[in-house]
Amino acid sequence: MHILIIGAAGMVGRKLTDKLVAEGQFGGKAITQLTLADVVAPSAPEGFQGKASTLTVDLSAPETATQLATARPDVIYHLAAIVSGEAEADFDKGYRINLDGTRYLFEAIRQEGLRQPYKPRVIFTSSIAVFGAPFPNKIGDEFFTAPLTSYGTQKAIGELLLSDYSRRGFFDGIGIRLPTICIRPGKPNKAASGFFSNILREPLVGQEAVLPVSTEVRHWFASPRAAVGFLIHAGALDLSRLGWRRNLSMPGLSATVGEEIEALRRVAGEKAVKLIRTEPDETIIRIVDGWAQDFDAKRALELGFKADATFDDIIRIHVEDELGGRIGG
Amino acid sequence: MHILIIGAAGMVGRKLTDKLVAEGQFGGKAITQLTLADVVAPSAPEGFQGKASTLTVDLSAPETATQLATARPDVIYHLAAIVSGEAEADFDKGYRINLDGTRYLFEAIRQEGLRQPYKPRVIFTSSIAVFGAPFPNKIGDEFFTAPLTSYGTQKAIGELLLSDYSRRGFFDGIGIRLPTICIRPGKPNKAASGFFSNILREPLVGQEAVLPVSTEVRHWFASPRAAVGFLIHAGALDLSRLGWRRNLSMPGLSATVGEEIEALRRVAGEKAVKLIRTEPDETIIRIVDGWAQDFDAKRALELGFKADATFDDIIRIHVEDELGGRIGG
Repeated sequence: MHILIIGAAGMVGRKLTDKLVAEGQFGGKAITQLTLADVVAPSAPEGFQGKASTLTVDLSAPETATQLATARPDVIYHLAAIVSGEAEADFDKGYRINLDGTRYLFEAIRQEGLRQPYKPRVIFTSSIAVFGAPFPNKIGDEFFTAPLTSYGTQKAIGELLLSDYSRRGFFDGIGIRLPTICIRPGKPNKAASGFFSNILREPLVGQEAVLPVSTEVRHWFASPRAAVGFLIHAGALDLSRLGWRRNLSMPGLSATVGEEIEALRRVAGEKAVKLIRTEPDETIIRIVDGWAQDFDAKRALELGFKADATFDDIIRIHVEDELGGRIGG
Repeated sequence: MHILIIGAAGMVGRKLTDKLVAEGQFGGKAITQLTLADVVAPSAPEGFQGKASTLTVDLSAPETATQLATARPDVIYHLAAIVSGEAEADFDKGYRINLDGTRYLFEAIRQEGLRQPYKPRVIFTSSIAVFGAPFPNKIGDEFFTAPLTSYGTQKAIGELLLSDYSRRGFFDGIGIRLPTICIRPGKPNKAASGFFSNILREPLVGQEAVLPVSTEVRHWFASPRAAVGFLIHAGALDLSRLGWRRNLSMPGLSATVGEEIEALRRVAGEKAVKLIRTEPDETIIRIVDGWAQDFDAKRALELGFKADATFDDIIRIHVEDELGGRIGG
């Protein structure tokens, strides 16, 4: 079995690669070949016994998609995207990568299949940014996609193309809308959503963190481990169970900032919580106010996708996977 | 005021042109220029006092959109599309015209605005084909778009682009999802939906018509006159009232085939009804089974869009507008 990961150098791509290498098999079949592609050079998979290749490629060039499809991978993970902030700042770049790049990929698969029968599994990472406020209290599986960003628009279009190409039989596709990943490893960044992770990740290593919103703010989360679990599950699932509705909101954990902090207190103690400094930021308050707070991800749950059970688990997963089990500075 | 109609040679385009010429003004401003564009030569508008031009153009060539936008019309009606059956039969052509053509148009408007400030009103005709079965009994304004045809996919993508280009300030757009037009004038055609009109239009002139489905089948209708009314209303409406949710299901009339026939009996008598011959067609029965039956078009109604009041009216409109008031062979 040959697996291609596009966007392999990103955080989720790297964790997915590690998991695939650790498992060595996929839906009961041995993984014999791994191709890792990204716009920045992906690392070679450590400890992989099969054939591995890493490609540094630009998905906005149509020949990239042709090159990738011609190798006829059995499973294609399409994780590559310009993030929300950048797609909003650079309109052309966002459409070029997130829309054209995705369409080139889907079309290259179709063209390869016209040359010689070919119908790979395609797993596309979409986002809860396909939804725009105002929302119902819980966003259900039949709520409409009315995005309020260009990024969300591009993801919603990718979802529609994925369904149509699947329905037409050009590939067997599934789109999964990831919750906000928490705790996101690495350094604090300027993403408006960064604080959801910062206020846990930094105190866990004895560093201060800034909370720019009220503790009442509610949002929708999954750990990196849960996200990789969704991707693996989506790769091996019998997609005929989805009919032609190929895009699913993934299950997650709905929590307030206050609940995050209580979980931190339970896992890491009062000392950690004291490192959170409240510093309201009107811009972030306004942005976050338009974000989804909770979902009823009924279809995904019925199909066996599994969310984190508690926020304490989300923190413990970070401590295990990123901190070698050690809490403190 | 300069109005451009793309897709002006089609049935709705011609009726819209006639109405605009008859009114002579638009939202209180005199219509001084009319540009009619289509892939087949549109007729010159009869009786129009201002400047008129007709263009025979292919919207799938990017330079067409540039040519149209460079003339800086104040209002742009984008009615052009490859119809459902053809977009399903010819995958490439459907995407080329319905998706690429629409995107070229939107992008040409944006580019024209980058050259020199320009923000026209854009009215895009979408379709209830953006929805796919299974449906709720009435499709509400927040029901998701899960199309079951490539045509519906292309329209749903056009809607998303329209909203994003509007939100970014490149134009002031509104997308309207037309119900099935009934009574569609002209000859019977092979469209799966044709019988909804055929069983009324043909008996009204003393001709036989075939009914391929049960009288229980329910669907969603608007007269050509109501459809033109939606387009005119959308052109002059204050779109800030829509926020960024720029796509609306138009109000219509939900009726069963049996109700259509009862209306025909009231308007044209038993003699007309006797001309309908039942001849079940399994293919059509299966296709129609996946179509929307009823809508709750709350937002559009609140915004002042008006549906036909009764099916008797729908028939009378046809008799007035197409038959010069005369019923019978």
